[in-house]
Amino acid sequence: MDYKFLGKDTSPEALKALSPKEREELCLELRDKILNTISSNGGHLASNLGAVELTVAMLSVFDYRQDKIVFDVGHQAYSYKLLTGRFDRFNTLRQKNGISGFPRISESPYDAFDTGHSSTSISAAMGIARARDLDGKKFNVVSVIGDGALTGGLAYEAINDLGHSKTKMIIILNDNEMSIDKNVGGLSKHLSKLRISSGYISAKKTTESFLRKLGFVGRGLIKMILAIKDFFRFLLYRKTPSMFDDLGLNYYGPIDGHDMGALIKAFDGAKDINGPVIIHVLTKKGKGYKPAEDNPSDYHGVGSFDLEKGVVSKKNSYTTVFSDAVTELASKNSKIVAVSAAMTLGTGLDSFQLKFPSRFFDCGIAEEHCVTMASGMAVSGFVPVVAIYSSFLQRAYDEMISDCCFMNSHVVFAIDRAGFVGNDGHTHHGLLDISYLNSMVNMTVLSPRDYTDLRRCLSYAVENVKGPVAVRYPRGSSPFEAQCPLYQDASELTLPHLSGNYGSDFAIVSTGRISEEADKALELLKDQGILGKHINVTLIKPIPAKEIFDMLSGIKYVFSLEEGIISGGFGEALERELQKLGFESDVTVFGVTNSIVRAMSQKEQLKHCGLDSESIAASIKSKLS
Amino acid sequence: MDYKFLGKDTSPEALKALSPKEREELCLELRDKILNTISSNGGHLASNLGAVELTVAMLSVFDYRQDKIVFDVGHQAYSYKLLTGRFDRFNTLRQKNGISGFPRISESPYDAFDTGHSSTSISAAMGIARARDLDGKKFNVVSVIGDGALTGGLAYEAINDLGHSKTKMIIILNDNEMSIDKNVGGLSKHLSKLRISSGYISAKKTTESFLRKLGFVGRGLIKMILAIKDFFRFLLYRKTPSMFDDLGLNYYGPIDGHDMGALIKAFDGAKDINGPVIIHVLTKKGKGYKPAEDNPSDYHGVGSFDLEKGVVSKKNSYTTVFSDAVTELASKNSKIVAVSAAMTLGTGLDSFQLKFPSRFFDCGIAEEHCVTMASGMAVSGFVPVVAIYSSFLQRAYDEMISDCCFMNSHVVFAIDRAGFVGNDGHTHHGLLDISYLNSMVNMTVLSPRDYTDLRRCLSYAVENVKGPVAVRYPRGSSPFEAQCPLYQDASELTLPHLSGNYGSDFAIVSTGRISEEADKALELLKDQGILGKHINVTLIKPIPAKEIFDMLSGIKYVFSLEEGIISGGFGEALERELQKLGFESDVTVFGVTNSIVRAMSQKEQLKHCGLDSESIAASIKSKLS
Repeated sequence: MDYKFLGKDTSPEALKALSPKEREELCLELRDKILNTISSNGGHLASNLGAVELTVAMLSVFDYRQDKIVFDVGHQAYSYKLLTGRFDRFNTLRQKNGISGFPRISESPYDAFDTGHSSTSISAAMGIARARDLDGKKFNVVSVIGDGALTGGLAYEAINDLGHSKTKMIIILNDNEMSIDKNVGGLSKHLSKLRISSGYISAKKTTESFLRKLGFVGRGLIKMILAIKDFFRFLLYRKTPSMFDDLGLNYYGPIDGHDMGALIKAFDGAKDINGPVIIHVLTKKGKGYKPAEDNPSDYHGVGSFDLEKGVVSKKNSYTTVFSDAVTELASKNSKIVAVSAAMTLGTGLDSFQLKFPSRFFDCGIAEEHCVTMASGMAVSGFVPVVAIYSSFLQRAYDEMISDCCFMNSHVVFAIDRAGFVGNDGHTHHGLLDISYLNSMVNMTVLSPRDYTDLRRCLSYAVENVKGPVAVRYPRGSSPFEAQCPLYQDASELTLPHLSGNYGSDFAIVSTGRISEEADKALELLKDQGILGKHINVTLIKPIPAKEIFDMLSGIKYVFSLEEGIISGGFGEALERELQKLGFESDVTVFGVTNSIVRAMSQKEQLKHCGLDSESIAASIKSKLS
Repeated sequence: MDYKFLGKDTSPEALKALSPKEREELCLELRDKILNTISSNGGHLASNLGAVELTVAMLSVFDYRQDKIVFDVGHQAYSYKLLTGRFDRFNTLRQKNGISGFPRISESPYDAFDTGHSSTSISAAMGIARARDLDGKKFNVVSVIGDGALTGGLAYEAINDLGHSKTKMIIILNDNEMSIDKNVGGLSKHLSKLRISSGYISAKKTTESFLRKLGFVGRGLIKMILAIKDFFRFLLYRKTPSMFDDLGLNYYGPIDGHDMGALIKAFDGAKDINGPVIIHVLTKKGKGYKPAEDNPSDYHGVGSFDLEKGVVSKKNSYTTVFSDAVTELASKNSKIVAVSAAMTLGTGLDSFQLKFPSRFFDCGIAEEHCVTMASGMAVSGFVPVVAIYSSFLQRAYDEMISDCCFMNSHVVFAIDRAGFVGNDGHTHHGLLDISYLNSMVNMTVLSPRDYTDLRRCLSYAVENVKGPVAVRYPRGSSPFEAQCPLYQDASELTLPHLSGNYGSDFAIVSTGRISEEADKALELLKDQGILGKHINVTLIKPIPAKEIFDMLSGIKYVFSLEEGIISGGFGEALERELQKLGFESDVTVFGVTNSIVRAMSQKEQLKHCGLDSESIAASIKSKLS
């Protein structure tokens, strides 16, 4: 497709000057570019396709050079990037040294705030608006937030503060009835009521039909009345009292999020309101690409795919292995329940939900509530498996400690996406979990090295552990098939495992999937005549220090290896516990020192941090010489 | 006061059988016992006095042996403890080996969930209720939550889930228009509207007057109608559509929280609703003790005091030193703003608020929002000082990382209550902050040893640091006065400080207030002929390892000392950085291994963990021999 608008002048003036027809063409071009780029690079598809008109309308009303637009989560900002100076580099999306899949202030002066996690945009925008007011400046501040993100407590805390402080800012509620999965929650029902109350009719149509009914009003007059550009027209959008009004915001909507004219009018009107405004906009996820419209969950985050064929079903991964294992365990133990934070599909809990609907709880994007609620079930005799990505579980740090660990509640944390996540970049890595879990009293931590180990870990966590227990596993796949039954001798887990043994020149003590790199490093060094051993540890808290100590007997050079931050991590715990036993040598800790590791492939990220087999082998060799 | 009811039979049957007059007497007794105990032991006064009738009414309706009552925060549960088997031990409240100031499942089978932090009760109660339903059981589950705690996002996440799932449970909203300070937020305004809409009139009175107006209804009939004990009467309480209805809950209220009859009727009615119910109850903090009624904030958490004289104004503390310093700094730098999470008085920000009202932001019990909002101000050129207790800041763990550290936002975290907090017990200690701060990229961490050092740290954090920076300081006071000006040579902070130097038998490297113990240990050992030195470090991230290394030259026995968890803490970072420089000796790390250190004095807690001067001296002596 040859572009008539994209890649040309997309200054605020140029966008404002477009005709309605031209805006439609621009939207087609944006969809084309987004589809072609994502099908090649991977990325967030459904959310970005849904926000095309929304973005063009925003940029036709607001001036991106001075107004501040904060995207919640940020996985709907591709159109914004394309229109604010990043068209030329858009083919580098999510690649090494390329542009990020999320807004980044380091990437563009027009990205107002870094995002990645959910529900932050209203808070961030409020801060920016408060700063503006103290500075006596006048620009607009806009938060673009999905209905899913609005289920997060942080968003509510911000709305509560906003309704009280009456700070002038605009919230665009991009309501597509979805988080990543279908939305849940009382709020979602409330929004649905608001939608129904309007019958999806835009104010324009209402006004038009109202005027027509009056009979004596001519076509010309209708046109004139409809053309008056002040916010009195905007007020007509309002239909039903909403909880947002109760909380002190001005609510307007709902508005068809693919009707450019209606959007522009609403945004224009909102600019003039001297206080907090929430504009409720209805969009369709995946809009313009049929397979994504039909199955938005499947097209949330995708790898590269064929646009004609669509996304093909996913291959085996740590997630599918977890999915099978937890369902299998639940069929044998009726006390097992599962909890998701709006990520049923992403965490693989969909099969559990299908098989045990009454034992499955999707609590919305509400990690904190998931954890505390799960502990309530645990103190009542159930075994909740809470499946949350490592990076998102950071939200529930305090609840894990205060509501689980202190009471020694048997909650099982299934922590997916532990370690590097690849192209989503640093906001999504799971590099902190070992460190924060290690500091939590009563917490047991398991870090499986492959599928088989993951299955064993889950069974051990559910059936053998008595208190809070975390099983952390990475994004992606393993070269080895899952081969063992779920239940078996716990010593396979609780004792260190000798993964390779060529000699005593050195030893690597590893945990998790990164043990693959240690195995390879062992081979690389063997080829150079340096003969070491590799000990893999699955149970990392409490760490089986005595057994590791015995296996390290006579070895002077010890290296620990983990896919996580060094501070408070596996290596430091290992060194501390070995030291207590009188171990004489130092442990050299391999891990991550700076957690800002930007988007690139997982392999590249390992290499970037010196954690791939070649780098490890080189470091060991250098230390030994 | 001789008790007629307290300490006698307070079984559910006995409480149900009390006459209205007897219940009033019981309330008097409870207030007497609470006042006498707190004035001697310290504790939470205003909140407990406000919840006396509420508790007696609950226990007259619900059976505490089978129904589950979850108190939010838990600082209003004294009456509950006195009536559920803990009267005899109540004089040990908050003492070593005594009963806790908060609900503890380890203390009583009638405490349904451990609390301490805010906004958890609805989530916990939902978990208990969901477990009950899966088990096919029938008991009631009640969450007692203040309007302050309802400003926390976690509570909203739970309400959102509850309104959707329609789980049968009861929320008693104990609305006293206060968190610890006066409440803020759109919700608070909404509650106030609900209050006004009812004119504080209980349903009984409304019904009565309505029936009277009908004229032909006799007194007897009125009495009869009023006596019908079903929930139709209860429905009359309902006045105004509330946001809770929007979210799918059944809202009833408001009800006078000191009118025992109204409370009992409301609770009785709520039992029969087959879904989620929220009962809005209005109480007065400090009820029954005039000084506390007049100044509830002053009587939130108190030490021992004279009941006749009331609480006398507080002496100097780390908090007052912070208070003075931040206000002084703000008068010189107009970009400094301050942010509080409903703890203006507790954190000492009251003087800042008084002097710079437009630059002060109380965001409610909403630590997450405070942090993200502050970062929005920081990226706009302001320097927000976010003052939150260490333990409560855990709630914003993810926001600190994702919304501050990743963007390198210059947000200043003033972390009060770092270390042991004494009688509030383990839920309130600040033992994790060094560990979690150490794992955060771009974060600078300062840990002052005394008032003077705290003043310097604040000035350095505000004026010299460019990214996120934390200043952590303890609860309580220091024996040394603040003696220096705010601004001075940064090397005082950034370099290690030789606090004592008798010889090279050993060295202690300490950080924070606990350096006092190291000084004393040095003296104790000197008296025994063991001569060491003491190095105190204020800037602990990035740690001035090279300078410490130089000062440790020739010393074989090195001990680190901190008031915090060992995993990921100061000692481990010190050892790691010294090791990188080629330091040969091990560092023995003194710190906390098990963070569950129960209520006792701060001194006792230090001793309990082997961190007081005597224990340190003994450990060093034993290591050296």
